[in-house]
Amino acid sequence: MTSPAHPTPPAGTLSYQQAGVDYDLIDPLKVAAQRAAASTAGHLGSHGFSEVAASRGESAYVVDVGPFYLASIVECLGSKALVADEMHAITGQSYYAAIAQDTIAMAVNDLITVGATPLVVQAYWAAGGSDWFADAQRAQALVDGWKKACDRCGVAWGGGETPALAGIVADGRIDLAASCTGLVNPKQRLSLGDRLAAGDAIVLLASSGIHANGLSLARKLVERLPDGYATRLANGQSYGEALLEPTTLYSPVTEALYAAGITPHYCANITGHGWRKLLRHPATLTYRIDQVPEVPAVLAFIQQQAGQDDEEAYSTLNMGAGFALFVAAEDAQRTVEIARAEGIAALVAGRVEEGPKQLLIEPLGIRYGDDALQLR
Amino acid sequence: MTSPAHPTPPAGTLSYQQAGVDYDLIDPLKVAAQRAAASTAGHLGSHGFSEVAASRGESAYVVDVGPFYLASIVECLGSKALVADEMHAITGQSYYAAIAQDTIAMAVNDLITVGATPLVVQAYWAAGGSDWFADAQRAQALVDGWKKACDRCGVAWGGGETPALAGIVADGRIDLAASCTGLVNPKQRLSLGDRLAAGDAIVLLASSGIHANGLSLARKLVERLPDGYATRLANGQSYGEALLEPTTLYSPVTEALYAAGITPHYCANITGHGWRKLLRHPATLTYRIDQVPEVPAVLAFIQQQAGQDDEEAYSTLNMGAGFALFVAAEDAQRTVEIARAEGIAALVAGRVEEGPKQLLIEPLGIRYGDDALQLR
Repeated sequence: MTSPAHPTPPAGTLSYQQAGVDYDLIDPLKVAAQRAAASTAGHLGSHGFSEVAASRGESAYVVDVGPFYLASIVECLGSKALVADEMHAITGQSYYAAIAQDTIAMAVNDLITVGATPLVVQAYWAAGGSDWFADAQRAQALVDGWKKACDRCGVAWGGGETPALAGIVADGRIDLAASCTGLVNPKQRLSLGDRLAAGDAIVLLASSGIHANGLSLARKLVERLPDGYATRLANGQSYGEALLEPTTLYSPVTEALYAAGITPHYCANITGHGWRKLLRHPATLTYRIDQVPEVPAVLAFIQQQAGQDDEEAYSTLNMGAGFALFVAAEDAQRTVEIARAEGIAALVAGRVEEGPKQLLIEPLGIRYGDDALQLR
Repeated sequence: MTSPAHPTPPAGTLSYQQAGVDYDLIDPLKVAAQRAAASTAGHLGSHGFSEVAASRGESAYVVDVGPFYLASIVECLGSKALVADEMHAITGQSYYAAIAQDTIAMAVNDLITVGATPLVVQAYWAAGGSDWFADAQRAQALVDGWKKACDRCGVAWGGGETPALAGIVADGRIDLAASCTGLVNPKQRLSLGDRLAAGDAIVLLASSGIHANGLSLARKLVERLPDGYATRLANGQSYGEALLEPTTLYSPVTEALYAAGITPHYCANITGHGWRKLLRHPATLTYRIDQVPEVPAVLAFIQQQAGQDDEEAYSTLNMGAGFALFVAAEDAQRTVEIARAEGIAALVAGRVEEGPKQLLIEPLGIRYGDDALQLR
């Protein structure tokens, strides 16, 4: 339950808030919920366990159960399925295998930030009516994609819920979410940031495209495009197909790092607030970026069409960096190689320094200050 | 991912299928999903763990992680929030504190069937738009009710998701679900039914009303009532208020049983398929009921209004029994006393016998055979 602080967008551009998500209305509830949630931690003591308090406000909740830590999470896909539905109307294809991977990625990529190995995924597939499941091609694509993503992450698909919720979920739509449970084992793998320090390297793992954040904006832009989702990008893909590139699953990298003896000092899954997520850790440190990854064609297109400058674009979209690993400087190059061996492009993008809390993206002349991200 | 077998309802009555949920359309997907899910179990081995295969098809998924078993689940509230919305329009009150308890009950009451102690609950609150959260009274009721239910169950509220999903969740509505993670600790608490045997007693714990299953039918009936949700029941409550009585949370009973040295041989959470859930265990055994609990006024009313005979009503609704504990005969009376000490009415309703797979509700002359429930 996190909430961003929004920089005011320049006039004429299309911001995330203009695209229909008003975080100001959600925030008071989130604050109340966070407080109430925090007040329940003491219950764990009656079972002989305890909360890892530093995980409150992080991407997954962590409990010390003795021999290891237990991490859990539930995550929503968001509105990306609407793009799949629109594209199906255009091409007749089903994109739900990709959508399944996106949904699992939302949960798994968050769970691994705390150092957990994801073990079990549960499916939450709530349709607007029983008839959603009558499209056998689409339903099978969802099942196949879900299984494939579980295979890729080495998690067991435990089960789940497939309710038909007429009147709650919109007719013809499906609300997709995943819960994920994992263990931090051995406990030394816990990466809540207490080892994060000046001198650490920042390794950025490539994204495959928009992933599953920024879709409200991406969908809003379609209204401005004469050819809509069929609009061709510079790389020849249609806009819709490019948007539906499934989210990269990063757990193979974090597992391979552990196998190689590298424990990240901190991790950030770059989702809803773009590169501002690099400011997630509460410490007062400066994050200096001297190399940025290549921007996927679909994100360059969105930035251009929305008339966003770099500061706005990097504060909302992943701009080619889907996951950040903060590692000891001497492990940086090996971290990049391990990611590449898993088929995921990576680069040593910068370093952590003493200084005020800020993110400096030097090649682009961007500075995000302490006030740019208030997630807690 | 379970699917019921439907007895054909007598003419003129209102069955669950007629009320709008067509399980036949969901089932092929569920079968495909179950097969794909089962095929992922082997991944646990690469982490040094293993699936407890007998938990496939049970109410929670269980993994052997060495010192204890890990259990996890995600559960949906269903359509009960629609009743809360209708009643709000009539009375101006918010019923979301009760709805929060219902949602947590769906997850916790399932998780405990395997012998797990629920430890962490995650909230999934997906609204049709940011404006859902702008109703401060309603949002606060949801938060307060969620926390209170966590307090009652002794679980930590880990966090969750509060997305605004315009276009996926219907305008003005909220899709509520909960994930729950727990541990079976010590491992001897595992209750997947391998100890279930002839001679065991069947203890039924009282329900508080309809709980969160059968609401499609209950809402459909409103169309037949001149006073709708304001219709007075025999006990003076309005139909709407009675429907919104929150689901009983049963984990305090299962935890108290453990503390008293009683390990149930098997448990069944009586939800979507009514008393047919007593046939859940795959063993060939006869379940003979010689005492039935009092039927809550709201369920008697629904049965009467829907023109259902007992066989139909007990195959759909909980009819006063929200949770079944199968315990050693010598523990039966003490189990009842422990439940009562937790404020939950209970009775020794019958026993398990050698014989064909069937449920005999003798006071009502009902027999459900092996074909009445096909959940696997």
